[in-house]
Order: sequence, then structure tokens, then C-alpha cells
Amino acid sequence: MNLPTPLTGVVPPVCTPLTPDREVDVDSLLRLVDHLIDGGVDGLFVLGSSSEAAFLTDGQRRLVVKSVAAHLGGRLPLLAGAIDMTTPRVLDHVAEVTEEGADAVVVTAPFYTRTHPAEIARHYRRIAAESPVPVVAYDLPMAVHTKLPADLVLELAADGVLAGLKDSSGDLGGFRTVVTGARTHPGITGFSVLTGSEAIVDAALALGADGAVPGLANVDPHGYVRLHRLCRAGDWDRARAEQERLCALFGMVGVGDPARMGGSSSALGAFKAALHLRGVIACAATAEPQVPLSEDEVERVGKHLAAAGLL
Amino acid sequence: MNLPTPLTGVVPPVCTPLTPDREVDVDSLLRLVDHLIDGGVDGLFVLGSSSEAAFLTDGQRRLVVKSVAAHLGGRLPLLAGAIDMTTPRVLDHVAEVTEEGADAVVVTAPFYTRTHPAEIARHYRRIAAESPVPVVAYDLPMAVHTKLPADLVLELAADGVLAGLKDSSGDLGGFRTVVTGARTHPGITGFSVLTGSEAIVDAALALGADGAVPGLANVDPHGYVRLHRLCRAGDWDRARAEQERLCALFGMVGVGDPARMGGSSSALGAFKAALHLRGVIACAATAEPQVPLSEDEVERVGKHLAAAGLL
Amino acid sequence: MNLPTPLTGVVPPVCTPLTPDREVDVDSLLRLVDHLIDGGVDGLFVLGSSSEAAFLTDGQRRLVVKSVAAHLGGRLPLLAGAIDMTTPRVLDHVAEVTEEGADAVVVTAPFYTRTHPAEIARHYRRIAAESPVPVVAYDLPMAVHTKLPADLVLELAADGVLAGLKDSSGDLGGFRTVVTGARTHPGITGFSVLTGSEAIVDAALALGADGAVPGLANVDPHGYVRLHRLCRAGDWDRARAEQERLCALFGMVGVGDPARMGGSSSALGAFKAALHLRGVIACAATAEPQVPLSEDEVERVGKHLAAAGLL
Amino acid sequence: MNLPTPLTGVVPPVCTPLTPDREVDVDSLLRLVDHLIDGGVDGLFVLGSSSEAAFLTDGQRRLVVKSVAAHLGGRLPLLAGAIDMTTPRVLDHVAEVTEEGADAVVVTAPFYTRTHPAEIARHYRRIAAESPVPVVAYDLPMAVHTKLPADLVLELAADGVLAGLKDSSGDLGGFRTVVTGARTHPGITGFSVLTGSEAIVDAALALGADGAVPGLANVDPHGYVRLHRLCRAGDWDRARAEQERLCALFGMVGVGDPARMGGSSSALGAFKAALHLRGVIACAATAEPQVPLSEDEVERVGKHLAAAGLL
Repeated sequence: MNLPTPLTGVVPPVCTPLTPDREVDVDSLLRLVDHLIDGGVDGLFVLGSSSEAAFLTDGQRRLVVKSVAAHLGGRLPLLAGAIDMTTPRVLDHVAEVTEEGADAVVVTAPFYTRTHPAEIARHYRRIAAESPVPVVAYDLPMAVHTKLPADLVLELAADGVLAGLKDSSGDLGGFRTVVTGARTHPGITGFSVLTGSEAIVDAALALGADGAVPGLANVDPHGYVRLHRLCRAGDWDRARAEQERLCALFGMVGVGDPARMGGSSSALGAFKAALHLRGVIACAATAEPQVPLSEDEVERVGKHLAAAGLL
Repeated sequence: MNLPTPLTGVVPPVCTPLTPDREVDVDSLLRLVDHLIDGGVDGLFVLGSSSEAAFLTDGQRRLVVKSVAAHLGGRLPLLAGAIDMTTPRVLDHVAEVTEEGADAVVVTAPFYTRTHPAEIARHYRRIAAESPVPVVAYDLPMAVHTKLPADLVLELAADGVLAGLKDSSGDLGGFRTVVTGARTHPGITGFSVLTGSEAIVDAALALGADGAVPGLANVDPHGYVRLHRLCRAGDWDRARAEQERLCALFGMVGVGDPARMGGSSSALGAFKAALHLRGVIACAATAEPQVPLSEDEVERVGKHLAAAGLL
Repeated sequence: MNLPTPLTGVVPPVCTPLTPDREVDVDSLLRLVDHLIDGGVDGLFVLGSSSEAAFLTDGQRRLVVKSVAAHLGGRLPLLAGAIDMTTPRVLDHVAEVTEEGADAVVVTAPFYTRTHPAEIARHYRRIAAESPVPVVAYDLPMAVHTKLPADLVLELAADGVLAGLKDSSGDLGGFRTVVTGARTHPGITGFSVLTGSEAIVDAALALGADGAVPGLANVDPHGYVRLHRLCRAGDWDRARAEQERLCALFGMVGVGDPARMGGSSSALGAFKAALHLRGVIACAATAEPQVPLSEDEVERVGKHLAAAGLL
Repeated sequence: MNLPTPLTGVVPPVCTPLTPDREVDVDSLLRLVDHLIDGGVDGLFVLGSSSEAAFLTDGQRRLVVKSVAAHLGGRLPLLAGAIDMTTPRVLDHVAEVTEEGADAVVVTAPFYTRTHPAEIARHYRRIAAESPVPVVAYDLPMAVHTKLPADLVLELAADGVLAGLKDSSGDLGGFRTVVTGARTHPGITGFSVLTGSEAIVDAALALGADGAVPGLANVDPHGYVRLHRLCRAGDWDRARAEQERLCALFGMVGVGDPARMGGSSSALGAFKAALHLRGVIACAATAEPQVPLSEDEVERVGKHLAAAGLL
């Protein structure tokens, strides 16, 4: 299907359930997709950071897109990450995920290599020229170690290179520059500005964002869809209450002991433990070399679910 | 062939010559290998940073290893980078490069994802368990955004997980901790400590390093081999003079205008322009999205070559 | 006067006008204070980053506090920065600014030295124990190179160590954790959570912030006071329009040529040029070693003012 | 006395002994100075990072310089740090320390504020114009969060703005660029290039450094003086052995538990504990908000001393 212009609403970055031996658990993945559709989401984003794209082999990535695309059958727009270091490698992923059915690709600036705004522009222009589907920029400085400059995003939007932005930078001021610029720039139409920050979706929508891509929506899609609707209705008080409930739930990302593991092990481990506790996926394993949560830590995830009314 | 224990001497990270349309130029690659062998180097490292590994597709990576391995025919040890974000993806590269003939693999800590010392240890242990050849750790904080702790490297060396370290961190104090630790730790034998810093090879060898992996050795392998021999002979005055000549030559990495391009475009562009000017490779193109050097900038590369007596 | 508990509303970080030979221009400073009072602000913050506190000598700092305190005569609460590297040096500034009449002190985490959460806690506890007035934490990672953890801020608030937070981190998610925590924690009362981010004041107030400390309020205090009132009235549509007008005005911080100067020269130069163009201060000079704006750059500041209806 | 041109040899950054209530312990300070003179050092550097300059009040800083200058009576050159955020504040310190007898001032790039190479140049030029004594640049990126570019240092050296460089960046390649540049640039004479890296003094001297400013020389001045003499004599094997003994001793900086304290608390705590154990200073207290070492940690410092033959 064609990507809506702009894409709006809640577009969860879909977790990738794994078997105990770290293969993609397709049954669980499709149950998770059904869980999200049941929640009322507006699109799906596979192979993002919450999907552990950085940990999946090329074969696993392909299997994820193929399985979800077939299962969706065009019911919702399907975005797929094409996460790799530089243009030629990203282009290979673009070819693969679009062959399997992605309706749009989500692409970061180059990483691992040192980079430069001129090179970032060249990167996106080259990818857009080759991609059969629209290209959404993915701003994730924590991973990429570069912040996409708002001016550059708007320039590429005006030139038709980019169809949207997924902003997980946490910098709402810079995000606003893109939102406002995309609305006022005469040459930009249909550009989709999406926040990836779980805790400030109400604020992002209030200032004009088109939608949100919250990893936590795996755990509580109904909550984020409710939040989105309240914001669209201008019911800001109830929106804020819903957002605060989700913020408390989001506290689960900190359950992992920082002496034993990094932030990714803790956050993705918590999302998967929650999905397992909610009965959506069969196994909470995360990919190597992430450190598994302890029983105590999983129990704390359960308390977060209970406090949010999800158990 | 088996990797020497320890691997010593000059082991250049081999540039990857490209055609004007950015395919691997195998003829030029093999001429470059011959140029390096003629220089007297002690091993070759393909698919490192100077090889633009971050820019090569999986198919191109495989072609590079296969071509060089076949051409070498076991005359020199062949190390190959298995550069990717996390354990499962690195393992796929390990399988590919060893199938094509690599005698050892060179692996960084996880990147793009947030990481932790416990996860780095888990990463190397898992890779060493699966790899059919020895694993060399690659410390490149500029790209990976994590510094490998000296204690962790020594622990993994003592446990037989790591066969060596290529240190491109620029931190000679930390490097020394590994060099001294590898010599004095009763459980460590045959561990190879190699510096990746072009400008301080004499210093690294003086304090006990086993060898060097300098990108600039593509341009002047004879110079680095001479430097290594002078150091081994304890002729520190002549070694210093040779090193200073190479430092001046290394100034070429700064020819690119920082308003137009990043450090990788400039440095790799300069190495390739120099190889082209010296008649070793057919085309100086670097991979996308790197910005090409201008004619003026290439001319400045030529002046560096001339000043170093290489034209 | 006593600091309100909590302090709410618009509390500009007051610029420090200088003479052409870089002495404090007290006449201009008091005119600026009158301009801010005329705008309807709720308090003043001297010796913050927008005040060039990092550039003022101890004598100049003292003169600023003394002059403003005398001029205010208790009409508004007066906060003063006590910006220095570590506890003993900060305590000297606390003694000086409170002697001159500050009603509260604003203090960052230690900087220049390497630091640790336990040391940050120790720092604030020691300062609060010695300070005759309430202590407000100043979170400014761009300058301090440490982010104040939300948990630590809340712990210190609950213990009565901190009276408030000025958050200039740009991280609205973390800010929200403090806002919500300060409201729900049973042991915290009267704690003031203020945003220092010019471009997202509406968002910060919508999620429960007590007020804002925007550097740009020097240039347009009436605008920020209007924005604050619209937010308090729940008139979010008009608030957003006002905020967007201020965001466009805020674009002035980027007038300086990045090839010639850093971000501080550009932003503080623009604020002072704007105040000079508006007739509030006599001279737009910034402190050494900041690079002055060119005539062209000042002209662009003027265009920002005109577009915002301020000339 | 006049600063030698160039200043050479071992110039320890003198620790500042404190009383249990954190006042400067002048008796211990002068005993420490005698201990260093007895070790054969070539100059003294007060108010550097190892001196806890960032933690000393202006009054304490002045007392340190005055006491040491009077005690030295011109026997050795006395360098003093003028450590503060920007030009005007540094100039005040320059006036104070030179009034008290400093023969040279040591100055970092601006910090806390955002900066730019043009502003760094302006900073040093302005300070040199006002200072009655020579200005030595202090490159300490861990504290200042900016690396002094080698080209800029050489430009300022050629213009007579800088008399020397104390490089604590750990980047020996960049250091070498300054060493070689200072030797070969026709306009530079008498410029002193000093390393601040405890663990690679032999390497720095081998490549042409004029001397070293190692914090660990407080603990073992005789060792560093011996090392310097061995290097000057070209006895590189014995120099390396001496350096390795000092490297093992330097391991004491890591005794502090990272869960309880930061790197400064650990390293400076260890130096002071060692000086106390060696009977040089009366009390091992470090300034607030640094966390004191535990008894166990102090015991581990003792083991380092014993292993190095210093107890």
C-alpha cells in the first residue's frame, strides 16, 4: 500500500520476539502484530531500535518483514528500518525490505564512520534516488552519535528526498523547528513528523506532530491510541493523565541493574518481559550480547504492569 | 595459514580500490597487495576502517577477502575485519570471511546499541566460541564510541578469547597497560599488541608493542617496514627521523576542506589519491556518501608525496 | 524577600550589559530590569548563563547583584547564580551574592573536575547547609557536561536540600519525571520546577512546570508573560501561536557565522544586539573572548525583531 | 626568576595538603616542596589539576602561591595555574598569582561556555598581552571538553603568545605535532613542550619533549627525575624499566570504588594517601565534594607504595 501523506497516529516500532535459541519466533511476532492491531494502531514499524534491528542478521531481518507484510496484507502501512553504517550497505537493506513488502524505509545518518552534514545530505539523496518507496529519516543521536540538523531535514523534505522524520533525539525544541517548518515551508507537503519519545507524546502532538513511534506501545498499544485520540480531541487534561500513566509504566526500562548490564539490555529486556507476562509472546529472550534480566528484575516489570492496570 | 603467535611487524589495513562506479577494482586491489608485499610487510588486514569496510556491501566484502586470499596463497597472514553492530551480525561476517580464507578476524565492541563492559565481554566470548580462527579485538573509540578497558582486554586474553589487540584509540598510556600486562600476566602467551596510530609507531614499539597497523602504510609500506626494522635494531635516532618523515607525509589526511567534507572523506580520499598518483591503483574514488577531493586538494596530496620523496 | 514556594511564572536570566571596554554598564542594566518589570515578569535571575556569569569577574558579579537588588527593593524575588567549579568556590559566591541581596542561589553540579552522583549530592547538601537562602539546582549539561539525574533531584528535594530546579537540558522527558515526581512525592512541597528552554515553554507548562527562565525573555518579556498567562488560562491554541512567534524570534541565536565564532558569541551577541536595537541597553558588547557580531549579522537580528513585531 | 627558555625536566604539579577542616596546611605544603626539591625536580607547578585548583578558593590559591614562592626563594622556577572559565576571570587570577611570585602562568582554553578556535586564540592573545610573565597553555580535554588544536598552539607560539604547552590530553600523536613543529618552525624559539601523562614520559621525551609534569611525581619525585636522566642519557632500556615501575605505582589512581566515587576522588585521594603514608603530609583529606577513600582503599595505596619500593 502507499504510505499516507502524511502518516499520522500511533506507529509502534514492533519488538522482535525470539526463541530461547535466539531465532525469530514468527508465531509470537504475529501475535504481537495482532495485539497491536487490536490496540488500534495506525501503522507498524519493523526493524527499528526497539525491534533489536542492530542485533538481527540479514536473514532474520528479511524474515521479519516478510512475515509481518504477509500477515498485514495491506491492512496498515508497514515501515521497515534499513539500519546500517553507510549508503551502499543501507541500499542493500532497502532492496531487501522493499522486496519483502515494506511500504517505506526508515534510515539513519551514516554512523561508525565520521560524518558531515554534506555527507548526510548526499547519503539521503542517494538512497531516495534508489528506493522504490518513500524514505523516512531516523534521528537517534544516542546510537548514531550525530544529531540531524533541523535545517537539513527541512531542505531534504522540500526537495522530495524525505517523506518524514522519526525523531528519537529527545530534543523537543529541535523537533518543533521541523514540525513548524514542515507546515510553513511552501515546498513541503505531506511530510510526516513523528516523535519516538515515549514520555512526551502529548507534548509532541500538542505542538503539531503527526504521530508517535513509541517503543512502549508494544506493551500498551491501547494506551497510546487512547492518548493520541484524546490529544486529537483537544482533551488535554485527560491526555495528560493518560500520558502520566504511560510515563509511570515506562519506568520499567530502568529495572536492570546498571552494574550488570547496559541500557539496551534493561529497556528491551523489560519490554519483552512485559509482553511475556501479558501473554503476547512465548519467550522474553533478547538478542546477544544483551544480558538477560534476573527473576527479581522481571518481577519489578510485573509491578509496573500491575500499577498501570495491565495485569 | 596459522596466525603467528604473536603476530609482529607491519600489517597494513589494505585500502579497497574502487572503480568510478564504486565497484571493487580487483586488479587495482591485487596491485596494491603486490605493492605492500614488495614493501616487506608482515601481514595484511583487509576490511578495516582504512579499507572502507563500513562502506562495502556484504558482496564486496566477500570479494575482497576471496581475491586477496587467493592472490596471497598463504604467503602472509591475512586478517579480515568482521565489522558490524552486534554479536549475531558479526558472527555472519566471521563465517563469510573465514570461508573465503581469512586467518584471523578483527572485531570491535558492539556499537550503535548502548553497551556495557559485561556485554562487551559476552560479545567477544561468544564470537571466539564460534569463530574457526583467532579473534583480534579492535579498539576504535572514534567509531565505536566505547573505549575497550585494558583490564577487560587482559582478562579476555588470559582466557584465550582474544589473540591480539589492534589499538587505534590514540591513548598510548592505556595501550602500554595492555602491552605490559600481556608480557607479565602468567596466563597470557602469544598475545599480539598492535598499534593503529600512524604517528607514534616508534613509541609504541619502544614500549613493547608487537607491531603496527598503519593506514598510511598503504602509501609508503617501505617506510613503515624500515621504521619497524630500525626500532627492532634499537637504532632510535634513525627510527625517529623515519617516523618524522612519515608524520609529515601523514599530514595529507588533512587536505580536505572541513567546510565541505568530514574527516573520513579527507583521510581516505588522500590515501587513495596518493595511491593513484603513485600509479598503484587505477582510480581514487571513495565510497558513498564520502565527498571526493577537489583537484586542488589532490594537488596538495601530491606535494606531501613529493616532500616525502615518494614522487 | 522570601522566595515564593513554589516560585512560578516568568523569571528571565538577566543579560549583563557591558560598556565598550567591558565593564558592567549599571545604567543599562537597570533599564533592562525596568524593561523586564514592565513586561510583567515574576522574578529575576542574575548571573546565569545568559548573564555571561562565566565571563564576569567576582567584582563584576557582586556589582550586578548589588545594583539589581537595590533597584528592585524587594518588588520581585531575585535569584543569583553562584557558578563555579566545586563546593568551596561556590560557597564563596553564595556568601557574596546573598550579602548583596539575593533571595535564592542557583548552582550547577561540579564541573571541570570529573564528578559522580555521590559527589553531586554531597555538593548540594554541603551548599544548602551553608547557604542562608534557598538553593535551586541548575541543570545545564551543555556547560557542565553532566546531566542531573531526575532521581537525585527528587531525593534532594525531599530532603529539603533543593528548593527548585532550573532545567536547561532540553530533555523534556527527564524534566517531566521531576515535575511529576515533585507533585506526587509525599515529602516534597513548594518545590519549583522551571524550564530554561525558550522554544518549548508552552509544552513545559502544559505538563505541569511552575515557570520558565528563558534567555530570550530579555528581548521580549511581554511575549513570554503573555505566553505564560495563555497557558495558565488553558488557552492552548493562542499559547501555541505566541510560542511559535517566540520560536521564530529565537532564530536570532543562529545569526553568527559558525566559521568565525562559537554558539555563545552568536546567541549572546544576538540577545544584546536586539536589546540595543530596541533601545534598552547602550552597547551590545559581549565579554571576552567572545567574537562580536558583524554589521550584517546585527542586521539579521533586526530582521528577526521586525518579523516578530518588535521594531 | 625568569622562566628558562625552554623549561625542561621534571616539573611536578604540586598537591595541596589540607587540614581535616579543609584549610591549606602550609607546613605540609612546604614539607612537600622540600620533598620534591630533594627529589631533584626542575621546577614546580602549583594550582594545577593535581593541586585541586578547581576546589581551592581564591584566598587558598593565593596562600599556596605566596607560601611556595617565599619558601623557594627563586631556587626553582615556579609556575602557577590561573584556572577559570574565561578571559576576564583568568586575568584576575593571573594578576593574583604573579603578585604572589609566580614566574609563569598556566592557562586552559575557555570552559563551561561553548567555545571556538577563534575564541581560544583571542583568549590566549588577550591574556598574554596582560600577563607580566610568560603564558603556558594547558591542554586538558577531560576537564575543558575542548582539545587544543596543534596548529593553533604552534601559531600562538610563533607569535610569541605562548611560552609552552602542558599537554595532558593523552594524545601522543597530536603532542608530537607540536614538538616537531616547535623545533622546525623558523619563528619559534625557546618554546617548552611538556607532557602531563604519567605513564608515557619516556615516550614523550624520546620523541623530543622538553619535560614532564606528572602528578605522580608528588609521590615519587626521585623516580621521575631518574627517569628523565636515563632518557637524556639515551639509556632507553633502563628508562623503560623505571617507567614501568612508575606505571605500576600509578595504578594507585584506581583504588577508589567507582560505585562510590568519581575518578578525581580516587586519583587525588590516592596521591594524598600515599604522601601521608610516606610521612610527607599530615593529613590525606581532599577538598569537597570529593569522597574520601575508605580504610581498605588506603591500604591498597600502601601496597602500591610497597611494591614500588617506597615504604
